[in-house]
Amino acid sequence: MNEFDLISKYFSWPLSDTSVVLGVGDDGAICDVESGYQLVTSIDTLIAGVHFPKSTSAADIAHKALAVNLSDMAAMGALPKHFTLALTLPEVDQSWLEDFSQSLQQLSTQSGVSLIGGDTTKGPLSIAISIVGWVESGKALRRSGAQIGDGVYVSNTIGDAAFSLWQLNNNDAPDSGCLVKLNRPMPQVELGRSLQGIASACIDISDGLKQDLCHILKASKVSARIEVEKIPLAKVLTDHVNKKNDWSLVLNGGDDYELCFTVPVKNQTMLSGISKRCGVKITQVGVICESGDLEIVGAKNIGRSYQHF
Amino acid sequence: MNEFDLISKYFSWPLSDTSVVLGVGDDGAICDVESGYQLVTSIDTLIAGVHFPKSTSAADIAHKALAVNLSDMAAMGALPKHFTLALTLPEVDQSWLEDFSQSLQQLSTQSGVSLIGGDTTKGPLSIAISIVGWVESGKALRRSGAQIGDGVYVSNTIGDAAFSLWQLNNNDAPDSGCLVKLNRPMPQVELGRSLQGIASACIDISDGLKQDLCHILKASKVSARIEVEKIPLAKVLTDHVNKKNDWSLVLNGGDDYELCFTVPVKNQTMLSGISKRCGVKITQVGVICESGDLEIVGAKNIGRSYQHF
Repeated sequence: MNEFDLISKYFSWPLSDTSVVLGVGDDGAICDVESGYQLVTSIDTLIAGVHFPKSTSAADIAHKALAVNLSDMAAMGALPKHFTLALTLPEVDQSWLEDFSQSLQQLSTQSGVSLIGGDTTKGPLSIAISIVGWVESGKALRRSGAQIGDGVYVSNTIGDAAFSLWQLNNNDAPDSGCLVKLNRPMPQVELGRSLQGIASACIDISDGLKQDLCHILKASKVSARIEVEKIPLAKVLTDHVNKKNDWSLVLNGGDDYELCFTVPVKNQTMLSGISKRCGVKITQVGVICESGDLEIVGAKNIGRSYQHF
Repeated sequence: MNEFDLISKYFSWPLSDTSVVLGVGDDGAICDVESGYQLVTSIDTLIAGVHFPKSTSAADIAHKALAVNLSDMAAMGALPKHFTLALTLPEVDQSWLEDFSQSLQQLSTQSGVSLIGGDTTKGPLSIAISIVGWVESGKALRRSGAQIGDGVYVSNTIGDAAFSLWQLNNNDAPDSGCLVKLNRPMPQVELGRSLQGIASACIDISDGLKQDLCHILKASKVSARIEVEKIPLAKVLTDHVNKKNDWSLVLNGGDDYELCFTVPVKNQTMLSGISKRCGVKITQVGVICESGDLEIVGAKNIGRSYQHF
């Protein structure tokens, strides 16, 4: 099977998106852009043994590779539209490709985002996805808008994915709820869209709450005080924290792909409606304050954030 | 040095492009699109040991990674605008990064294309670049428009990059002109733009003239007859072909990043003006004919095209 047959068999499903003028199969894809929108662009790579254990299933890898890019769109308040896939494979394994393709198509259909092109190459397993979304002109959520007095919020629960990875690394029977968060994270696209005009800054939690919140603080030139007891946790993680007296998975665990965002006081009454409409729990974990170090109240053992190198 | 310092030091140079509303440093980049344009999108990955010898310099790798993506824009007749970079590095080597960054900035400035985002991860060396260009609505060059009777053309000379790689693999002293084509290919963006409304189909030669022309033929549902004696060759390659009586480097050698395109008879008189204006040699190598196998006249030893797997 050559590259072109492979693309045609596994990556050329029909698209319903009328903005795609020419999809997979030429030197580039052609897309229309509606007026009144700006483009939001992002790229993320997953590498075997770095971003997922080598034993991860093809379906989980495909889901996650797209989900982390959708999560960037969520963090910008953008509507995901199109993506391209650069797939590097050690060999052509048709059963692996079948599972990968099905899972990718499933999440892309569910999210209304179209695969419009890509390339496949031979090499150590890695998946780079580049995504383009649309955002109403001037309405994107950025990291830089947090103001003193704004509340700091997170969606759903924090640390589930890191706890699951910790269980896998310690040969514990993985908690099924947390394992789903590790392998099949659901990007908060609808929440991101709903936070337009409500949140003053937003980021998705990929490297850990502490580090990602610090990106907001640095970009916004402010600081924050958060209280660990307010951070929403799954029951198994509460038990883990209590037993070990260790908050590092909660504060530094990456891969949750929940949103961390700041909201001015005047907009905070709207959050319960957004929470209900999106079916997402929203919890205030702290408040933005004047510049200085991030203050973390209530945690003894914090540990170190994820470092890429 | 963490990921964020690395990005800030090596990949955050000032941009003059006013369509970039928000560049490197948030979850996504934000760009305006002018009305009257469609987007053209492409992604290409280079992997150490597959797409370039492991001894290739950082500057050559950076140039080539961007050039192959610019070449996709050229083949579509699009104006390259923005790109994102997914850089996977085995380690942080500041001297390597310095060279990589300088070379990338140089070609991007020269080509008027802005680096707007990306990610860096630890792993086996690979570089994925995703590029977005603009094309006047409805004016993109596609592979599918070739018609019976159209001439088949190529830009400049063919096979130089493959000959250079062959020399390197055979421990021959590399011909300097061919080595430049291998390591620093110059994408034919201006030529691609000029062929809008002139060419009926276009592709860039990345996998070899034979295979890439066949993509045009398949997409256009036609065939072609080409004459090897008409294919423009560098002097050293003419000598090689005569000595070895072997056309495989010319027909199957990839990595030239010249354009192969088809032009209806009525437009052919305009090619000499385009050639002069773009400073690019344009040569007719054959003609489009009815469906059937591609006919290659005059070559005995043709060999096999590059296969990705």
